[in-house]
Amino acid sequence: VTWPRSVLPMAVRAGIVVTGTEVLTGRVSDRNGPWLAEQLRQLGVDVGQIVVVGDRPDDMRSALAHLAHSHDLVITSGGLGPTADDLTAEVVGQFQGRPLVLDQQLEKRIGAIVDRLVARFGGTLDPAATAAGTRKQAMVPAGASVLEPTGTAPGLVVPAADGRTGPPVIVLPGPPRELQQMWPVAVAQPVVHAILVAAPELRQRTLRMWGVPESELAAMLRRAGDAFDGLEITTCLRDGELEIVSRYRVQAEPAQQRLADGIRQSFGDRLFSDGPTIDELVVAALVANGWTLAAAEAGLGGRTTARLTSYQAPGPVLGGLVVARRDPADDATAPALARNVMALFGADAGLGISGPGQDGEPVQIAVITPGGEHARSVSVSGPAQFVRERVSALAMHQLRETLTAAH
Amino acid sequence: VTWPRSVLPMAVRAGIVVTGTEVLTGRVSDRNGPWLAEQLRQLGVDVGQIVVVGDRPDDMRSALAHLAHSHDLVITSGGLGPTADDLTAEVVGQFQGRPLVLDQQLEKRIGAIVDRLVARFGGTLDPAATAAGTRKQAMVPAGASVLEPTGTAPGLVVPAADGRTGPPVIVLPGPPRELQQMWPVAVAQPVVHAILVAAPELRQRTLRMWGVPESELAAMLRRAGDAFDGLEITTCLRDGELEIVSRYRVQAEPAQQRLADGIRQSFGDRLFSDGPTIDELVVAALVANGWTLAAAEAGLGGRTTARLTSYQAPGPVLGGLVVARRDPADDATAPALARNVMALFGADAGLGISGPGQDGEPVQIAVITPGGEHARSVSVSGPAQFVRERVSALAMHQLRETLTAAH
Repeated sequence: VTWPRSVLPMAVRAGIVVTGTEVLTGRVSDRNGPWLAEQLRQLGVDVGQIVVVGDRPDDMRSALAHLAHSHDLVITSGGLGPTADDLTAEVVGQFQGRPLVLDQQLEKRIGAIVDRLVARFGGTLDPAATAAGTRKQAMVPAGASVLEPTGTAPGLVVPAADGRTGPPVIVLPGPPRELQQMWPVAVAQPVVHAILVAAPELRQRTLRMWGVPESELAAMLRRAGDAFDGLEITTCLRDGELEIVSRYRVQAEPAQQRLADGIRQSFGDRLFSDGPTIDELVVAALVANGWTLAAAEAGLGGRTTARLTSYQAPGPVLGGLVVARRDPADDATAPALARNVMALFGADAGLGISGPGQDGEPVQIAVITPGGEHARSVSVSGPAQFVRERVSALAMHQLRETLTAAH
Repeated sequence: VTWPRSVLPMAVRAGIVVTGTEVLTGRVSDRNGPWLAEQLRQLGVDVGQIVVVGDRPDDMRSALAHLAHSHDLVITSGGLGPTADDLTAEVVGQFQGRPLVLDQQLEKRIGAIVDRLVARFGGTLDPAATAAGTRKQAMVPAGASVLEPTGTAPGLVVPAADGRTGPPVIVLPGPPRELQQMWPVAVAQPVVHAILVAAPELRQRTLRMWGVPESELAAMLRRAGDAFDGLEITTCLRDGELEIVSRYRVQAEPAQQRLADGIRQSFGDRLFSDGPTIDELVVAALVANGWTLAAAEAGLGGRTTARLTSYQAPGPVLGGLVVARRDPADDATAPALARNVMALFGADAGLGISGPGQDGEPVQIAVITPGGEHARSVSVSGPAQFVRERVSALAMHQLRETLTAAH
């Protein structure tokens, strides 16, 4: 939820069209919308709406018309491949009043890229089909700026044709790697740059609390009256953590400071972070103590081990042991798991989690450090995936609390 | 991409409005849109567009107007909490011409739920604030159907007011668990049911290939002419797998059969699945051989272990070992990892992956079964996350190939 007093002066708004039936039908989760939203935020631009459409020209056209109406800039992702069903360039060109024309130089450059790929992967590609695909990708709206391919597909910046109004459309490829590599070139185009220079800095800061109901924070914000005006405050509860994100212009920095101070005053150490995630704090606490860690978990599908070991090595976490079977959660299981995995990896500290059994059955979490052994029992009800996420979060917080107390 | 001949007769289209600044800004990935899309597909309903908006009434209003224009049913998720910034009920009510009225019976029922929650969690809730929140949640558009809360928030089915046209709007809470529990009640409401009975069955089938470029499949589909008419075919390349999803009405079942046969004929055993994921196939192949498995991976962040152990125990995978440090990828490392983890868990078979080193450096993958030892070296270039996903996919496919050859 966003706090109602939140009034953020929004100078520049961007809208995003994500294309792809696989995204629309939920088989693939969109990574481009969130990535673009954060890049735009860093440029001071607010994302107003994201529209997801399938590979259907009517839907794409209506999404463009919808977003162009209330946004200063429109960005599309996907639909730039070599086959006829990839129709973003054509639809955007029509929408902006710029029919497609063949860019012969671009056709040669794409042809060279495709030749290199064919040489690399070998294969039985039909030359006529390949040439047709290359030509299709070299058809660009007349007067559009071409963004050089980072895969095989060029991107585009397509302003409205002379005599038309409406925002320019940035057309980017769907594969996240290609889109991300092309982004800096897209924002450097004069027609885009001219819009972005109007956007003042938009700051974002995150506070994280543990063990606080959203309603208690809401009551505290209400009591504060207008002290936090100028901040757009969004709160979000997940895995038992309450995340408080403020977005604000530079002049509201004092209000953000008042917010952080007020929350610290009201909630003490239940405010556990002014930025870093719990995973990052656990790693930092290990480093501060000069300890290495190994983790063992039963019946959680490797969730906690993946969180702890996903950082770039070398780090203080040496590894983990994932036991698929759920052990009985007696008092001895979790400490034994922790001790065994410490011995296996030669680690200074250990985390042991006896797997969640049936819904709501107690789970033991044990943290062993050179300073002692801290075990406790928790109980979480709900679907298996929910229980796993919550138990993993409980273990990470128990780990952080034990490590920071030891320090 | 969606194959261009794809023409799916769409009798009923639904549009979805996802609300929440945390989703719009990319901090939380939306789980409701994909879940609803699959539920609707099972009811024969096609999702046309999904619009993501922040907690801002103007954007929500414009999203509703946009979707109402070209859809038979509109569904919203989120924005039903007790605070004033949760404004979905109010905005939808205005949009449908139905001002909010207090439902006193509903207020009592929500009050009872809140009392139970307060009793359970204790806490320092302000009674006046709680009562105000309860009353706010009991304000419903006049003439709307109330869906009983599965958390504290009621859902709504809001038809257009008399004299207005446009689709009914189903208003659902944001937390996925609450939304999912409420869904069956929502679709059973007469005004929704009347729309759904018009939707013929919409089937979906998935074929999965490994080691086939998208362009080769495209060439094969082109050569087939009109043999697959009636199928909406979407192809999607991820982690090196090519996923081919068809959606079709019952009468196109023969076309789907022709597609499956044609792909099998053209690509042989590179078509590895007509439904199940590679993870499911690995587990099935273990069961078919009557073998248990343990896995050890270095420097991959626990990706493969999590995939293998995330199924409900008891299963054939006993567990995994995640080594954070990257070992040198000499010929001996991966087989040694596999043998050590087999011994640790007492498993019949083992998977060992020597961690990816620097970008593009070779990675060893070893599979040991009672039938023998199969090791090979692969090399993947790109960002760390990309390399991890791809190496994990390579390992899963090597595992399946070895296990099915042994069977």
